Amino acid sequence: NFSAKGRIGDQVYAPFSIYKGKAALSLSPVLPTFTKLESGSVVVERRGSVMLKFMPAIGERKYDSEKKQLFALSATEVGSLISLGPKDSCELFHDPSMQSSNAGQVRKSLSIKPHADGYFISLTVVNNLLKTRESFSVPVTTAEFAVMKTACSFALPHIMGWDRLTNKVPRGIE
Amino acid sequence: NFSAKGRIGDQVYAPFSIYKGKAALSLSPVLPTFTKLESGSVVVERRGSVMLKFMPAIGERKYDSEKKQLFALSATEVGSLISLGPKDSCELFHDPSMQSSNAGQVRKSLSIKPHADGYFISLTVVNNLLKTRESFSVPVTTAEFAVMKTACSFALPHIMGWDRLTNKVPRGIE
Amino acid sequence: NFSAKGRIGDQVYAPFSIYKGKAALSLSPVLPTFTKLESGSVVVERRGSVMLKFMPAIGERKYDSEKKQLFALSATEVGSLISLGPKDSCELFHDPSMQSSNAGQVRKSLSIKPHADGYFISLTVVNNLLKTRESFSVPVTTAEFAVMKTACSFALPHIMGWDRLTNKVPRGIE
Amino acid sequence: NFSAKGRIGDQVYAPFSIYKGKAALSLSPVLPTFTKLESGSVVVERRGSVMLKFMPAIGERKYDSEKKQLFALSATEVGSLISLGPKDSCELFHDPSMQSSNAGQVRKSLSIKPHADGYFISLTVVNNLLKTRESFSVPVTTAEFAVMKTACSFALPHIMGWDRLTNKVPRGIE
Repeated sequence: NFSAKGRIGDQVYAPFSIYKGKAALSLSPVLPTFTKLESGSVVVERRGSVMLKFMPAIGERKYDSEKKQLFALSATEVGSLISLGPKDSCELFHDPSMQSSNAGQVRKSLSIKPHADGYFISLTVVNNLLKTRESFSVPVTTAEFAVMKTACSFALPHIMGWDRLTNKVPRGIE
Repeated sequence: NFSAKGRIGDQVYAPFSIYKGKAALSLSPVLPTFTKLESGSVVVERRGSVMLKFMPAIGERKYDSEKKQLFALSATEVGSLISLGPKDSCELFHDPSMQSSNAGQVRKSLSIKPHADGYFISLTVVNNLLKTRESFSVPVTTAEFAVMKTACSFALPHIMGWDRLTNKVPRGIE
Repeated sequence: NFSAKGRIGDQVYAPFSIYKGKAALSLSPVLPTFTKLESGSVVVERRGSVMLKFMPAIGERKYDSEKKQLFALSATEVGSLISLGPKDSCELFHDPSMQSSNAGQVRKSLSIKPHADGYFISLTVVNNLLKTRESFSVPVTTAEFAVMKTACSFALPHIMGWDRLTNKVPRGIE
Repeated sequence: NFSAKGRIGDQVYAPFSIYKGKAALSLSPVLPTFTKLESGSVVVERRGSVMLKFMPAIGERKYDSEKKQLFALSATEVGSLISLGPKDSCELFHDPSMQSSNAGQVRKSLSIKPHADGYFISLTVVNNLLKTRESFSVPVTTAEFAVMKTACSFALPHIMGWDRLTNKVPRGIE
């Protein structure tokens, strides 16, 4: 029973999706979770992120969600993305098994490289356990990248938990 | 009875309007609509936009709303507008009858072109069914364009539905 | 009885003030007012602004609020301010008696001019009825101007009434 | 009993922390406090800030919070930070005992200086009473500085108290 678990029914899924010939890329913010200490103060438990999802094309405007690959941008990685100038590129590496016995077996690398009108955003996932290597590359126009930058700049304080600090009820006059 | 339909009475109409000699241009954000799936999660049903409305002048500071023409900017088209540099121009095309039997019969084109202090924003609507061609051109100053950019950047996460993700009630401590 | 008038007690006065040797300048956003039409929809009645208040110095860190002069920046004038580059200047003119029998008798001019580190923001009020001419000039550092720009960019959608459009309750799932 | 003091239990602590080899730097917004005047209007009592906290390293990814030093950025000092260009530097000075008998005895200086990829953010605290001098220096990447700028730009209207001016209930139609 979902409602017993609380607010799951209130979650809104509103990804920004870019559908291109060979693959699709979609972005969704993931909020942090909080926990209440015995002192009564509330701290961030799990950090938020902007989740990138890549899916390969399997026909005209059809994409295979079973073969999706995810890459969760941390606050600082979102900072890399929003500070990219028009000629800049960046590369980010994740090891989903970091600090486990499988560390180093799976390696995800995300690259953002400029082209004539916008950027190529590419993800490569090398899995030494399964002996697989998957690659996705999505050409993103300047306009689409402007949406990504504006939406990520908007999302950044939210994934950091700073939006909780808004003066909803002014302190001192409760 | 309007109140029976819910929240219509709470809608606020606050366009940003630019009145010039030959035509007026006004911008209003249009929020997305959402739908609740059986699983309880909420998804975007109809995407939001920034609606541009052009009206021809019919006298001093009088404009003919009966002859208005609309152009709804999608999130990516808003990205085009907010990423325009001072010397850049852009052109966008819409077919309001796309994917119907009248596809290709009406063609709307919006162009934004730089001039000495700001931009010309022009809309041309060619209707092959009615054999009509209407054109509007509004000179927009640098200051007015700065308002458009700032307001559209503010509106962008809202028309995408990302503002729903704000940490109003922190997850994990319900 | 104030509470009978509604929400006056909830108004917050939080000006951003710049105190300098000869004069002080403070900025406060002024929200628009709304009115409900018979149709039930809500429209902007009086536009919002960013109010600039100048006061002359009358001693060390003392300013004469009786001799204050006001200049209310419209949305488009806020657009002028936030789009100023480091070498740009701008000048704005207001006639507080516009469209009355005293039109042209009082003339307020605000100028923003660059200097080595920031801008001079000056107001001149010429009153032909009282045969007076008052002038204020406040040197504003680059850091202070960055605060003005950021705060005015934040305030702009609010004074336009666009913040009312936030997806507080998603349409379609009421 | 904490709840008797009001809303302490609702405070959220969500610092943005940068952990480096010799020291750590974390940023947290501090909201202003408000007070209600007899007239019923609400004014800012104590200004908000962005609090910088430095801690020295005492082992691998271990930092000594007992030896922390704080530096509270005012709104204008946040303006200095967010207006820094890629080659710019700035230096800020605080005297925590200003206007007391110990004025001048403790001197804190914060400097932000560019390096190849980002900035060095350094704090020096000279205490003439205790005859101590402490120094911290944290290398901050371009991506981390982009997060600092975006988060500080977001926080600025909140620490100024301007976020209280949002049109939650539109004036005029209460």
